[in-house]
Amino acid sequence: MTWQDVAAQRKASILDAIPAEWRLKTAHTGDSAMSAFKDSGILTAEELAITETSAADLVHSLAIGKLTAVAVTTAFLKRAALAHQLVNCLLGFMPEYALARAKSLDEYFAKHKKPSGPLHGLPISLKDQCRVKGFDTSMGYVGWIGMKDDESSVLVDLLDKAGAVFYVKTSVPQSLMVCETINNITGRTVNPRNKNWSCGGSSGGEGALIGCYGSPIGIATDIGGSIRVPAAFNFLYGIRPSHGRLPYAKLANSMEGQETIHSVVGPICHSIADMRVFMKAVLGEKPWQFDSKTIPMPWRPEEEDAIRSKISSGGLTLGVYSCDGNDIFGSLKLSGEPAIPNIQELVNPDLKKVGVNDVWDLQLSKWNYQIEYLAKIREFEAKTGRELDAIIAPITPTAAVRHNQFKYYGYATVINVLDWTSVVVPVTFADKALDAKATDFKPLSDIDATVQAEYDPEAYHGAPVAVQIIGRRLTEERIMAIAEEVGRLLKN
Amino acid sequence: MTWQDVAAQRKASILDAIPAEWRLKTAHTGDSAMSAFKDSGILTAEELAITETSAADLVHSLAIGKLTAVAVTTAFLKRAALAHQLVNCLLGFMPEYALARAKSLDEYFAKHKKPSGPLHGLPISLKDQCRVKGFDTSMGYVGWIGMKDDESSVLVDLLDKAGAVFYVKTSVPQSLMVCETINNITGRTVNPRNKNWSCGGSSGGEGALIGCYGSPIGIATDIGGSIRVPAAFNFLYGIRPSHGRLPYAKLANSMEGQETIHSVVGPICHSIADMRVFMKAVLGEKPWQFDSKTIPMPWRPEEEDAIRSKISSGGLTLGVYSCDGNDIFGSLKLSGEPAIPNIQELVNPDLKKVGVNDVWDLQLSKWNYQIEYLAKIREFEAKTGRELDAIIAPITPTAAVRHNQFKYYGYATVINVLDWTSVVVPVTFADKALDAKATDFKPLSDIDATVQAEYDPEAYHGAPVAVQIIGRRLTEERIMAIAEEVGRLLKN
Repeated sequence: MTWQDVAAQRKASILDAIPAEWRLKTAHTGDSAMSAFKDSGILTAEELAITETSAADLVHSLAIGKLTAVAVTTAFLKRAALAHQLVNCLLGFMPEYALARAKSLDEYFAKHKKPSGPLHGLPISLKDQCRVKGFDTSMGYVGWIGMKDDESSVLVDLLDKAGAVFYVKTSVPQSLMVCETINNITGRTVNPRNKNWSCGGSSGGEGALIGCYGSPIGIATDIGGSIRVPAAFNFLYGIRPSHGRLPYAKLANSMEGQETIHSVVGPICHSIADMRVFMKAVLGEKPWQFDSKTIPMPWRPEEEDAIRSKISSGGLTLGVYSCDGNDIFGSLKLSGEPAIPNIQELVNPDLKKVGVNDVWDLQLSKWNYQIEYLAKIREFEAKTGRELDAIIAPITPTAAVRHNQFKYYGYATVINVLDWTSVVVPVTFADKALDAKATDFKPLSDIDATVQAEYDPEAYHGAPVAVQIIGRRLTEERIMAIAEEVGRLLKN
Repeated sequence: MTWQDVAAQRKASILDAIPAEWRLKTAHTGDSAMSAFKDSGILTAEELAITETSAADLVHSLAIGKLTAVAVTTAFLKRAALAHQLVNCLLGFMPEYALARAKSLDEYFAKHKKPSGPLHGLPISLKDQCRVKGFDTSMGYVGWIGMKDDESSVLVDLLDKAGAVFYVKTSVPQSLMVCETINNITGRTVNPRNKNWSCGGSSGGEGALIGCYGSPIGIATDIGGSIRVPAAFNFLYGIRPSHGRLPYAKLANSMEGQETIHSVVGPICHSIADMRVFMKAVLGEKPWQFDSKTIPMPWRPEEEDAIRSKISSGGLTLGVYSCDGNDIFGSLKLSGEPAIPNIQELVNPDLKKVGVNDVWDLQLSKWNYQIEYLAKIREFEAKTGRELDAIIAPITPTAAVRHNQFKYYGYATVINVLDWTSVVVPVTFADKALDAKATDFKPLSDIDATVQAEYDPEAYHGAPVAVQIIGRRLTEERIMAIAEEVGRLLKN
């Protein structure tokens, strides 16, 4: 078989796995898929309600027997099947596996009169980089199709122990190394709010699926924005925890063994409350006993409480930055000078020429850069006598963007270099009545001009806008508590 | 000047900095230097008492004004000066700097009626890899002499904030990469219990100086045993914390930027109680606000308490391993088969040929190796229903060894690969009456035969013997509590 045949076969097999009664009678038309779930008539009123319930409420209802795992799993299977038909967000659909698992959880509950774990019966979607024993993991490569995994990723195993149900694997761009989602297996995943827009990437299948309420919580990864961009483009919450907070062991990856900038794993979801359910459940399983890179740091309620008591007393101290100055590019553009040879290498590196000593130099520069950021915080705190609680910053230079228009990664990647904690909070939607095209725009660089030129009030009307809230390394509890407050004030 | 001139000048300048009245009248003879401090008549009875007092008691006496910083600093300066004349353990001697600092601390105390910090007035010795603003850091290289540092290492700054007094920089082997201590500046540092024995390395100056009671606590580093071997060879306690527990930023180092196996920093000292004083003081300064690689993990008393309550109730579960089987060498030797080309590379790597992808492969192998160790622990725990609290293992294949006889690093380096926490506990001394040369010894490898052949009951009579107590990553509080109990049972 050619690679085209293998890809076409997989694409067809995903659709074939969807029962006839869950299939759309007619192809969906129109830009937005958001109302199609109800309009299709395929989901019952109860299924619509279940899939639009928060993860926190779902685990509560499952834990007291108000909902069965089979009912919840069925509802999400159906909604995910519809989502796939609408926005093309899956690389794997596992209804039999999921329903068998849900049934065994219901049996457990019937026998023991208690849930099997803190996530008992909760469906969780998996980026197709997570390994599940017995299934393949494509990473968006045709060549990986059919290579069944003989063990699961550590995080998958721990979620399983906590009672989760796995039912889909979601789409990724070939290689994972871009912030849109397109591969040669299933093609392009689109944004459910407007199919002309990107769903982001590389965890774009997660963004699109959760954006459709086809999943309550999904597993994503981030080495340069891949959790945060899909969260932002689909009006969702997402956390890029610092490296070592959650277990990455036995996830598939590009450039395995690369440790200069670590890829990290984290959830995309609908609220901070749901994110907290996830984080507490995973940390409660002591992931550091399974993955040597995970730090033995349980969930720290005292860290949340510190933020909450500030909120209810003196208030928080938040920094804001609205523009990164476009970094090197902008500084060069100021005068028109060319890049010196050393910087040319940074901007357009010749990887074949990079040696071990170059990597060590780079790692040392990274460390010094991180230390400089810490010094800036201390400087601010010494000057003001106030503790800096977090910084609010852009995560992308635009709202959700049209296909093939994602150009600038700087706002996302700086956090990966720093290894800081970042939580994406949805803010608002572009509005053609308010957001006119700037007439006096002075670009910082060629890329800045390209990004600006793409803006079109009509084409982007309704596009989700988000910020990231960032804090020092391993401050997940604090930053989540701050994100929760910001979201509350925004009513999102 | 030739390098020989530069080296000779520095060597002389260290001795010149020692006041005439602190100099030995006649060169010391005999193998052991241990009684020379009292015998010299140079230290007063009070100075002998101060230098033989624990760090925990010293900080208490300093904090209540029972001792002055000047008195304590003077005592340790004098004893360190004698130690250097006896075992050649210094690369820098800073009496004026230290006494000025001590004086200002005493003034602070007089004015505020309280100590300036948890280490108020406590002298701390620094391996000559620690940077102190205004002084040079040789790392054992002649070429680095005279290059004054314009900032201090983060740990040095934080200890300074906590009230410590710096008064000496201690000797290291050229490059730090060996477990004995010899350089072209001052020559060889010897073991105070027997000058024919090595003091260990690379923190050998620390081991020898603290072994002489010329320092209460010293700063050492470890990438392959360099904290633990000098602790073991000088009958001292030492901790190799896991990477990220204590701040390494701005320490000088070989192979800066190398992150495959991290060098870590930690104290060598006389007891676990003293070690705890040090750890609590450093963590109390929130080092993670200064060094991005330090994990925001304060001292965790609940972790110590967990061990203590086990000790007082059901007891601990400790693993023991007495031989590592000599690893690859031994397995090959079993049959006499040659190393395959891949392993030949590991045993004797051609670093010029190592590329970035090789480093990534190595890092992935390391991670898998770490995960396998975790799986073995879980296997044991599942089988026995008991939590494994720690493992007791050798730290070197021999007691303190004669010069140039340190041959095998395997017991130390496996811990660096795992990044586990390890605390060295002194156990006993070789005894010619008990420890006869083995007659039925079957070597596992050539290196094993060489190590065994070196043993001579007469030459090693009285040589310190130690173990390391090891536990999973970032378990400092637990392992220290276990080490304290083992030490208590051994009456050390």
